[in-house]
Amino acid sequence: MDYIKKAPITGCLKNIINILWTFSAASDRVGVGCFVNSCGKCAACKAGQEQFCEKGTVIVFDSKDYDGTVTQGGYSQAIVVKDHFVLHIPDELSLANAAPLLCAGITTYNPLKQYNIGKDSRVAIIGLGGLGHIAVQFAAKMGADVTVFGHSESKREEAAKFGATGYEILKDTEDFQPLAGQFDFILNTVAVDLDLNNYMPLLKFNGVFCYVGIPSDEIHLNLFSIFGNQANLTASNVGGIAMTQEMLNFAAKNDVKPQIEMIGIDDVPTAYQNILDSKVHYRYVIDMSTLK
Amino acid sequence: MDYIKKAPITGCLKNIINILWTFSAASDRVGVGCFVNSCGKCAACKAGQEQFCEKGTVIVFDSKDYDGTVTQGGYSQAIVVKDHFVLHIPDELSLANAAPLLCAGITTYNPLKQYNIGKDSRVAIIGLGGLGHIAVQFAAKMGADVTVFGHSESKREEAAKFGATGYEILKDTEDFQPLAGQFDFILNTVAVDLDLNNYMPLLKFNGVFCYVGIPSDEIHLNLFSIFGNQANLTASNVGGIAMTQEMLNFAAKNDVKPQIEMIGIDDVPTAYQNILDSKVHYRYVIDMSTLK
Repeated sequence: MDYIKKAPITGCLKNIINILWTFSAASDRVGVGCFVNSCGKCAACKAGQEQFCEKGTVIVFDSKDYDGTVTQGGYSQAIVVKDHFVLHIPDELSLANAAPLLCAGITTYNPLKQYNIGKDSRVAIIGLGGLGHIAVQFAAKMGADVTVFGHSESKREEAAKFGATGYEILKDTEDFQPLAGQFDFILNTVAVDLDLNNYMPLLKFNGVFCYVGIPSDEIHLNLFSIFGNQANLTASNVGGIAMTQEMLNFAAKNDVKPQIEMIGIDDVPTAYQNILDSKVHYRYVIDMSTLK
Repeated sequence: MDYIKKAPITGCLKNIINILWTFSAASDRVGVGCFVNSCGKCAACKAGQEQFCEKGTVIVFDSKDYDGTVTQGGYSQAIVVKDHFVLHIPDELSLANAAPLLCAGITTYNPLKQYNIGKDSRVAIIGLGGLGHIAVQFAAKMGADVTVFGHSESKREEAAKFGATGYEILKDTEDFQPLAGQFDFILNTVAVDLDLNNYMPLLKFNGVFCYVGIPSDEIHLNLFSIFGNQANLTASNVGGIAMTQEMLNFAAKNDVKPQIEMIGIDDVPTAYQNILDSKVHYRYVIDMSTLK
């Protein structure tokens, strides 16, 4: 079977343009993530990194497929997807919980795996939002010692609930100094302007600062701030299909659950305003059966 | 023997404040590099990364040693150095050639080794000066395919002489586009303001851009320029003692030679002006026997 066509059951409202689905077929429970086609032949595709396909990955919405059609995203009652890009949803995961994992989950799981986070790692997660609350769970379940860098006291308890052992509010340069040289990996989930010259010295020798929240403006860095620890700066863009399946299996086995609120299609305008107002905890999932 | 005291034979004039030595003892030919003490007990020292000593590495000049004395550098007739920080100069290397290797050599060799450059690597070196002309030789002798990014035609032939198979003059954004996604590693040896948004897309998936020439101003980067190849940005600061010895042995075995001009101590003012005027090819070495 090359193609699967099923009615979507749930969708994850990440922002105004991004929606992901899970489906319930007669026998298999399956989902579709961020992309729906790639050439399958280039070095990236062969390495299981379809997101870097040299011919151009076909994104699930507003992207031109190789036959010229424009992908329509998932605010719909049905979708046709090449089987390679359809993920199996393990029985332990509800379809509603699986939906955000197909974007926020793989976005955070992929860099944690790529940089070998495990029981000997000390990890910091910047931001405890839609991405951050899943990143904390993944890193903790991988065995890492996890600290959340937040901007107010309001999320300290929630950070602990998700598995963080530390919580730091970092504002002034003096707040950073006691943490110098302590972290193997810092994952930044917030797309705001950070003073990297404060954050980079928190890394151990050869540590990595990885953006998954990408600010639209240029970042600034004085390289002398990494001259003492030879730290690395990078950014990560979701993950390949095999890694996405691995992530779903890991989430199922280790009880990693996005915290969601299920809404009907008519609730989208209100939910979107709540996202703009930072009132979402932590992901909205749309019940697609409400789309008539 | 804890300490070695010998009259220096040659010194490498890197810039106005940095001088390195080689010595000729009765039996051993030895050299002293960028640092002369570290705690020996911290994780960095134990890992052979004395340059990141947590107690603070003692630099060869103008640095406070643990006993409170200030290091004097090597414009002198004698130096006292703890034996751990004294390097063996292999017979195949002249003392004059060994002197620049103890700074420019280890500065370029260390990142090439750290990022596993070898026969399957495609490497670009930005700049063909004191650091660059040694970096090209090391990378080529490690088996990499080496391209030099220069700013004029004048160094094309010299780049090839040092082992580069490619030479590119990159000015406008259009100059960069044909090279997109081609390099595993880019070593930047020039401390000037580069448009990283042009350079980072030249890297392959997970490629590394490493600064060894550190600009005093902040660097700027639009993270979307690395979102397609998940490239890494880092900086490297010389290398540890064991790596420095390995570098000298590698240079001896593979005939890596800094291109030098030997001068007397009275020539230093002229030589320094030539450095400011970019007229040095590629390193001055001072014959310390001329210091009376």
